[in-house]
Amino acid sequence: MEFSSKLLQNAVSEVAQLPGIGRRTALRLVLHLMRQPQAQTNQLSNALTEMREQINFCNSCHNISDKDICEICANPNRNQSTICVVEDIRDVLAIESTASFKGIYHVLGGKISPMDGIGPNDLNIQSLVKKVESGTIKEIIFALSSTMEGDTTNFYIYKQIQDTGITMSTIARGISVGDELEYADEVTLGRSITNRVPFEISFKS
Amino acid sequence: MEFSSKLLQNAVSEVAQLPGIGRRTALRLVLHLMRQPQAQTNQLSNALTEMREQINFCNSCHNISDKDICEICANPNRNQSTICVVEDIRDVLAIESTASFKGIYHVLGGKISPMDGIGPNDLNIQSLVKKVESGTIKEIIFALSSTMEGDTTNFYIYKQIQDTGITMSTIARGISVGDELEYADEVTLGRSITNRVPFEISFKS
Repeated sequence: MEFSSKLLQNAVSEVAQLPGIGRRTALRLVLHLMRQPQAQTNQLSNALTEMREQINFCNSCHNISDKDICEICANPNRNQSTICVVEDIRDVLAIESTASFKGIYHVLGGKISPMDGIGPNDLNIQSLVKKVESGTIKEIIFALSSTMEGDTTNFYIYKQIQDTGITMSTIARGISVGDELEYADEVTLGRSITNRVPFEISFKS
Repeated sequence: MEFSSKLLQNAVSEVAQLPGIGRRTALRLVLHLMRQPQAQTNQLSNALTEMREQINFCNSCHNISDKDICEICANPNRNQSTICVVEDIRDVLAIESTASFKGIYHVLGGKISPMDGIGPNDLNIQSLVKKVESGTIKEIIFALSSTMEGDTTNFYIYKQIQDTGITMSTIARGISVGDELEYADEVTLGRSITNRVPFEISFKS
């Protein structure tokens, strides 16, 4: 696409660098901004720049936070001895929205993935191991995605802390609530059967 | 979604105001920016702000342009007496990429749409009428979308300039090149038959 304006060309090129946004969508977004008051574009730009410049990560769990210790870690009502290990901040949001977990989190910042050049040292694993070795943690719940990379990461962390004798678990895998059995894939349905739960527990949501 | 940071919340809210982008996608985009060098966010913000502040519209055709007269209008090799009337700048880009049109454009900036509160005075219609009345234009090609609003706009402009005796046409509608007849909708196929072209012309692309 050839544009009649360098400014437009520039804006479209920058927006099109975002993941999942091609040049056509970028053009649509940019033209939308053109039709809106200038204030909206300024607010958008400022919000992005300020966020990128000023945002902090929690020193304890590596979640995004405005303070040195995030609200979840600083909350005295949360169980500080149960840690849920997740890949990134989106998983924290997902689990928080279930209101089923009252412990704290540890955000790894990714998964071990040699194909993408991500090794254990690129992730927040050492701080997790230290936390566990300090003895304040009683249970670790692994909530990484069940891919090859997720399993590798789980196993790597497991090897590092297995001697501490801490309780470790992974979140349950099985077919979704409300799903029909006949449409479930074999691996998931198989896990649902292997990891079956006592009848009375299954009614607690 | 509750966020652990006001800055993040702000950025996501602003991005989610763009059309077709919900809060989940906005979060994904914002977290992507977090993982990239800070320079990328700054470039994106600057490109958007600069575009919104400095961009101009061509005084003649209302296309987006860095100068007062856009490159298409200023090009002496283009036929200044044939005007193609389009809805917005995306249509200009689409027609330009066909390399089939050597005249100039007139960007209306929308269609007459009482449902959305857009009347003739909200569009660049008067400047088109003036251009036609000045006598420099020989032919007008209407290239608006064939919806109720597009047809209304076509007809409104037609009524304004029919007395000038200028040649007026609309772009041809018919089934796409390469399409199977059996899958075409009836209206489109009907138009293809009504507006059939002499055999020898159909081989010129």
